Amino acid sequence: MPSLARRARQLTIVGVGLIGGSLGLALRQARLGYTVVGHDREHSEVGKAKRLGAIDRAEWNLPAAVEAADVVVVATPVQAVEQVFRDLAPYLKPGCVLTDTASTKARVADWAEEILPASVRFVGGHPMAGKETSGVGAAEAALFQGATWCLCPGSSADQAAIEEVASIARAAGARPFFVDPAEHDSYVAAVSHLPFLMSVGLVRLASESPIWRDLARVASSGFRDATRLASGDPVMHRDICVTNRESILRWIAAYQAVLSELAEAIRGDGADLERAFSEAKAARDDWVEARKRRAETA
Amino acid sequence: MPSLARRARQLTIVGVGLIGGSLGLALRQARLGYTVVGHDREHSEVGKAKRLGAIDRAEWNLPAAVEAADVVVVATPVQAVEQVFRDLAPYLKPGCVLTDTASTKARVADWAEEILPASVRFVGGHPMAGKETSGVGAAEAALFQGATWCLCPGSSADQAAIEEVASIARAAGARPFFVDPAEHDSYVAAVSHLPFLMSVGLVRLASESPIWRDLARVASSGFRDATRLASGDPVMHRDICVTNRESILRWIAAYQAVLSELAEAIRGDGADLERAFSEAKAARDDWVEARKRRAETA
Repeated sequence: MPSLARRARQLTIVGVGLIGGSLGLALRQARLGYTVVGHDREHSEVGKAKRLGAIDRAEWNLPAAVEAADVVVVATPVQAVEQVFRDLAPYLKPGCVLTDTASTKARVADWAEEILPASVRFVGGHPMAGKETSGVGAAEAALFQGATWCLCPGSSADQAAIEEVASIARAAGARPFFVDPAEHDSYVAAVSHLPFLMSVGLVRLASESPIWRDLARVASSGFRDATRLASGDPVMHRDICVTNRESILRWIAAYQAVLSELAEAIRGDGADLERAFSEAKAARDDWVEARKRRAETA
Repeated sequence: MPSLARRARQLTIVGVGLIGGSLGLALRQARLGYTVVGHDREHSEVGKAKRLGAIDRAEWNLPAAVEAADVVVVATPVQAVEQVFRDLAPYLKPGCVLTDTASTKARVADWAEEILPASVRFVGGHPMAGKETSGVGAAEAALFQGATWCLCPGSSADQAAIEEVASIARAAGARPFFVDPAEHDSYVAAVSHLPFLMSVGLVRLASESPIWRDLARVASSGFRDATRLASGDPVMHRDICVTNRESILRWIAAYQAVLSELAEAIRGDGADLERAFSEAKAARDDWVEARKRRAETA
């Protein structure tokens, strides 16, 4: 006789670093009824995730971690996703829902199409939140609060699978935003990857200058903030650039053109410059306000 | 019979906004023995400065504010400095020490040379601290804590005058850094003015794109930080660009070249890219650490 109590659905997070760990914390707090299982290539990370309460159960063996899972969240760096898909594909339960949190989506969509069994319902994902520190030690339940969570359903995903992944994003405090993978990659190239490269470029310009000692003394909070992103993980950002090359190169070229326009205005009498600065201030202040309102109503 | 009590020296701050107001708060806290008089073109600001305890006495009339001053600190935006020098030159006490806090120093040095009486001892100054909010309401005594305070003594300044301005910087918690005005302007073009223009450029690129609505949804904390400086005062930054044109244009061109190198590395296999990112992270992390140590020992 089957038990009347419905068994809790199992959600497995593969890669319990900053993003995977924060998602585990948020989901356990939201009490969606999942049993959250965590796996990581680094055994110390998964043990730490358990101690921090980010997962219900640690599983060091990948097949064992995913074979009973109703939902699998791959939260590894983007370049690791292909191999992780290959490693877990043979063990996934038919009908299981699979999502990821990688920073670029077109290549991940191709890998899902190519590697995953047809019975697996794939919905690509990317929560627009992060920090320059990494690892589960930096994880926090509120990381996704008010954030946009991009979702790119694959051809194998039905409405129920899409709704399940969207409800996970909402439970973490984020807002689902459905977007085509190629569009997603162009958007994040402009607002995430270009800012990182700008930041790296400024550090290189200053620190490789023969007068860096003097520049370093004079540099202040403006330099600190403009270079913050350059302290991010080099390997993760290399992977992002390699998997999103074309979009990033297009935005770099467009950005250099904008800098040339600003240089032209600097050669002028200041009127064009003041207008450009005022417009940028207004656009940025409006965006900050709108973002604050979105976070408050999340 | 002259009183045995030595009369307090008078220090007048012309322009009690964020910088002037913060200096007033810091000096009154440090109890250097100055009577701090404040003047501002905006009468409401000087009244507010008095209420906030940033000055001992408000003086709405510029000649009256400076005629008995032993030290005058001109803390107006850089483009206003020339006219302020003209307005106060006839009223300065012979031997008085005059300094400023403007963002660029070569033009200010020229104006001092041209406009101020030979009996006035001029020491240009620039505290490397600020916020994107302006006005005395944003002032705080700790604004300069651990900051570098650039000093550019004019030809009229003797050792006593230089020491007096340096001691004011130290009393505010900052570290004096003696530098030639032209060098100063090149340094700040790299570490302050270029970062501002980078930030404005990114806002323009994104907000003038036909897909800004989508970009704005996907943009996150990275975009927020990379654009923070663009929320600064447009007029102040216009003035900075106009008075520091050549240095800024040189650094923009050098920065565009660095971006082109990064684009070239993105076209490669990722090895050069990872090296570039790792080097930038190391240089930036070292700078942040060194800055923290400086602030702690200030």
